Amino acid sequence: MLKRYKAIISYDGSCFIGWQKQVEGLSVQSAFEEVLTRMHKVPTKVVASGRTDKGVNALAQVVHFDSKLNLDTQTFKRALNAQLHDGIYVHSVQEVESSFHARKSACYKIYQYRIGLGEVDIFKRHQVWFTKLNLDLELMKQGASFLIGTHDFASFNTNSFEETPDQVRTIYDIQIEKVKDEIHLRFIGSGFLRYMVRMMTQTLIEVGSRKIEPQQIQVYLEARDKEVLSLLAKPQGLTLIEVGYHSYNK
Amino acid sequence: MLKRYKAIISYDGSCFIGWQKQVEGLSVQSAFEEVLTRMHKVPTKVVASGRTDKGVNALAQVVHFDSKLNLDTQTFKRALNAQLHDGIYVHSVQEVESSFHARKSACYKIYQYRIGLGEVDIFKRHQVWFTKLNLDLELMKQGASFLIGTHDFASFNTNSFEETPDQVRTIYDIQIEKVKDEIHLRFIGSGFLRYMVRMMTQTLIEVGSRKIEPQQIQVYLEARDKEVLSLLAKPQGLTLIEVGYHSYNK
Repeated sequence: MLKRYKAIISYDGSCFIGWQKQVEGLSVQSAFEEVLTRMHKVPTKVVASGRTDKGVNALAQVVHFDSKLNLDTQTFKRALNAQLHDGIYVHSVQEVESSFHARKSACYKIYQYRIGLGEVDIFKRHQVWFTKLNLDLELMKQGASFLIGTHDFASFNTNSFEETPDQVRTIYDIQIEKVKDEIHLRFIGSGFLRYMVRMMTQTLIEVGSRKIEPQQIQVYLEARDKEVLSLLAKPQGLTLIEVGYHSYNK
Repeated sequence: MLKRYKAIISYDGSCFIGWQKQVEGLSVQSAFEEVLTRMHKVPTKVVASGRTDKGVNALAQVVHFDSKLNLDTQTFKRALNAQLHDGIYVHSVQEVESSFHARKSACYKIYQYRIGLGEVDIFKRHQVWFTKLNLDLELMKQGASFLIGTHDFASFNTNSFEETPDQVRTIYDIQIEKVKDEIHLRFIGSGFLRYMVRMMTQTLIEVGSRKIEPQQIQVYLEARDKEVLSLLAKPQGLTLIEVGYHSYNK
């Protein structure tokens, strides 16, 4: 009997061309499906909570797949980890209702962007974006306050209106804190459009380095215009850290 | 005028075939010399405190090179970092006496081996060796006590007696501590022969997991025999963390 499984996985974005399968290059999806297909001896698909771009990491991406192997979940986890690319790790496998869908059932996602302010730590270069900029945390928090809430984020993503007519999303919170030599930006939202987190991040970096005023963010939002912003933070600072399947509570 | 410079560098061992230049593959040395040679427009060599094997990291490897560019040291650092492979980072460049020699002047080295006991953290997989073994720290410390001091380490390295007739080295200290979900082994010694740190590490892992008695280390040492040990810890847990140019004080 076909059973549905939910798995929580990490991956190192520097090893892949992103989540999604493409004609060329190794994607997380294709690496994962290759192992599932080998185990099942029939083509087996995996569905993630959402795509991540090339270079973007996942600490806890959620995926689902269907299997008739009837393995216990610990064995499933071990078998996957033994065969997967070493840039992917399965933290848990859990049997779920057949109605569970990694993308459609997701209620919120949390992305974290790490900005390194100190000396470059070569061992963190794929997880932290290092900069010499002098960033003002208070200005960044002021800027972020304009993004929190339900808005049309048309200016803050690269999906066309043909692809995605409704570009209204809800940002539940943006948490900005200094952790030792790093600034961590955490974006908690109902869903994010293409490049949305990286565009918001780079805009907040410009605010923090006093290149633009915090209130300018309001102007960008109201413009609902694909042309007003071309600010895009480097992918390596970004990590998908949580996908929630119940409503978000601070 | 030719001036001698000392530089402190980090590198990510997973990107290279080791420190030393070889016919095939990218070594740290060749990556570094390529940039120096491009800057100087004549072949320019770099000398390290010692080789590191494929997969072994350096947090603070020390190198020297000679230059007639007469750049100030901050500019030198910036110019190197701008051109080097992103798996290498120069922390500092300093002008030194022409008598300074990165290898010959070194008084001690500190290597650290990190053993991860908890869930695999994919982002640390090139710096930490993850295991499910249940390791007894006290047994490991007992085992380590036999290695501390001046001994003929013939059993604990792969240099032949023809290459290295004198295999006596001094281990000033081996510090073993639990840091959160990791065990850190720190080896402080006058110098280390080929695979010596990784052979000592794996032997201590066998002691910690009760496969061999701590006293067995004494037996291995006294054997002075290349055949008694074939235990070699994985390279990715190992990092050269310090090279000292003054006598070691605890």
